[in-house]
Amino acid sequence: MEPIKSFQDLAAHLKNGPRRKMAVANATDEHSVEAVMRAVSEGIVEAYLTGDEQKVRAITAKFPESPYVHYVNVADPKEATDKAVSMVRNGECDILMKGLVNTDVILRSVLNKETGIHTPGNVLSYIASLTAPAYHKMVFFGDPAVIPDPTKEQRIMIIKYAIKTAQAFGVKQPKIALVHATEVPGPKIRYMNDYVEIKEMAKNGEFGDVILDGPMDIFLALDKERGAIKHIDTPVLSDSDIVIFPDFDAANVFYKTATTFGNAQMAGLLYGADKPVVLTSRSESTECKFNCICMACVLA
Amino acid sequence: MEPIKSFQDLAAHLKNGPRRKMAVANATDEHSVEAVMRAVSEGIVEAYLTGDEQKVRAITAKFPESPYVHYVNVADPKEATDKAVSMVRNGECDILMKGLVNTDVILRSVLNKETGIHTPGNVLSYIASLTAPAYHKMVFFGDPAVIPDPTKEQRIMIIKYAIKTAQAFGVKQPKIALVHATEVPGPKIRYMNDYVEIKEMAKNGEFGDVILDGPMDIFLALDKERGAIKHIDTPVLSDSDIVIFPDFDAANVFYKTATTFGNAQMAGLLYGADKPVVLTSRSESTECKFNCICMACVLA
Repeated sequence: MEPIKSFQDLAAHLKNGPRRKMAVANATDEHSVEAVMRAVSEGIVEAYLTGDEQKVRAITAKFPESPYVHYVNVADPKEATDKAVSMVRNGECDILMKGLVNTDVILRSVLNKETGIHTPGNVLSYIASLTAPAYHKMVFFGDPAVIPDPTKEQRIMIIKYAIKTAQAFGVKQPKIALVHATEVPGPKIRYMNDYVEIKEMAKNGEFGDVILDGPMDIFLALDKERGAIKHIDTPVLSDSDIVIFPDFDAANVFYKTATTFGNAQMAGLLYGADKPVVLTSRSESTECKFNCICMACVLA
Repeated sequence: MEPIKSFQDLAAHLKNGPRRKMAVANATDEHSVEAVMRAVSEGIVEAYLTGDEQKVRAITAKFPESPYVHYVNVADPKEATDKAVSMVRNGECDILMKGLVNTDVILRSVLNKETGIHTPGNVLSYIASLTAPAYHKMVFFGDPAVIPDPTKEQRIMIIKYAIKTAQAFGVKQPKIALVHATEVPGPKIRYMNDYVEIKEMAKNGEFGDVILDGPMDIFLALDKERGAIKHIDTPVLSDSDIVIFPDFDAANVFYKTATTFGNAQMAGLLYGADKPVVLTSRSESTECKFNCICMACVLA
């Protein structure tokens, strides 16, 4: 498999595979349902839409009928969410997607010890993929949303999730940059010991077939022209597949700045549940939600 | 004065003013000297170049002779640096600029209690200005370089330096965004108490005539299209003059991502010494160093 380099490539790749079964929790918001219907019409998913059936149908009505859209009539948003989660838990579906429900409600349902889809101890985090005109391939990064200030253990899991993602996108030997403001490992930086230990782990093969280096800044990790100036000898230089940020503020600033200033496109998923969870914010576009669904399909 | 909206505007604005006197510490690197000579030829500065005169002249030789370039022959880089600092200390010059000398060497000279140019207690920090095709005016921000994880007192000084800068650029009532990953002030975020107190200070007029709001993300602070989606009612929305980042990683990721992905231009200065200090990294372009000199001139 050639690496997938754009969201267009990604959708094209998925059309050739089997449809993934996806449960949508309270599918009564327009952008989410539009994104789902597009994924259905492109042959990518088979959708189970929980929620008040009348409200759901009011949105799906403008799309052609499809045998791959199923309505699961549960009027109450919380119950609709629990139903979607249970469909993933019992194996009917491979992917969970958030509809019109607050993030804390769906997370509580995912994490419920009796009825949820989370194995105790597994780290919940968020990994995203990004493309932009200025970069020659996809960038995978974490965590811009869930863990404000990762512990070493959480940092290691973020890296493992990102590696798994890059590999699912066809990157055979992911190049990983540990991001910091400079390439000099300052002694007073709170996460620098983690970086040192993580580099040691990578050397010992604990992340599999990857190349991991750092600390380095965004220029060294992602900028061909400016990365070259410092003559730093690492295969990751200006060619990273994965960038790992010190905390969620830096990761969040990264993709929002790339989007606002550089026309980047982004998709992301919640990791650490037993199956991929599409958990986008209400303000995301249909396009972004569609890309998230595709990302979930390649990982399901 | 109309606000200065680009580095072109800035240079044009300075041509009409008096030349600023600038001491360059060990002026033996090409990019720095080229930037200085450009500022001389555009009528912006009068330069005092310390360092081994032969080496300095080897670089200046390709430029026309100018009565506004002075050679201060001191062969040793550290002594040349001390000489440049002393010229600022005794009032001969208004601006200090780093040439071919390590940052720690020039900082030690600046901070020297007997011979330096730093008033004890003053917070050293770095404030930068940025323009990009995607944004309609200059953005001032801090601190991408000097203070890894600001205390509340340091955060307040970063804001004050940024306000002073925006005002020097002609922004009458700067709009200030306190950046966080979301607009929700999470309780476990280490700097959130600072943000709450700083907002209170702004309300009480302690920063003068400014509008300060937050926490908000980069979309809310700087993105017209995506900022509008969330219907948040603040004059800062999508129109910030100043963005204050939680720490230097987020600030550093901001300008490097805007540069790499969005063709941004950046200039910055060291604040907290008695006079502006141009302190760029060796890898910065002549263009960037020239913009930094201009930024120093408008603040001198």
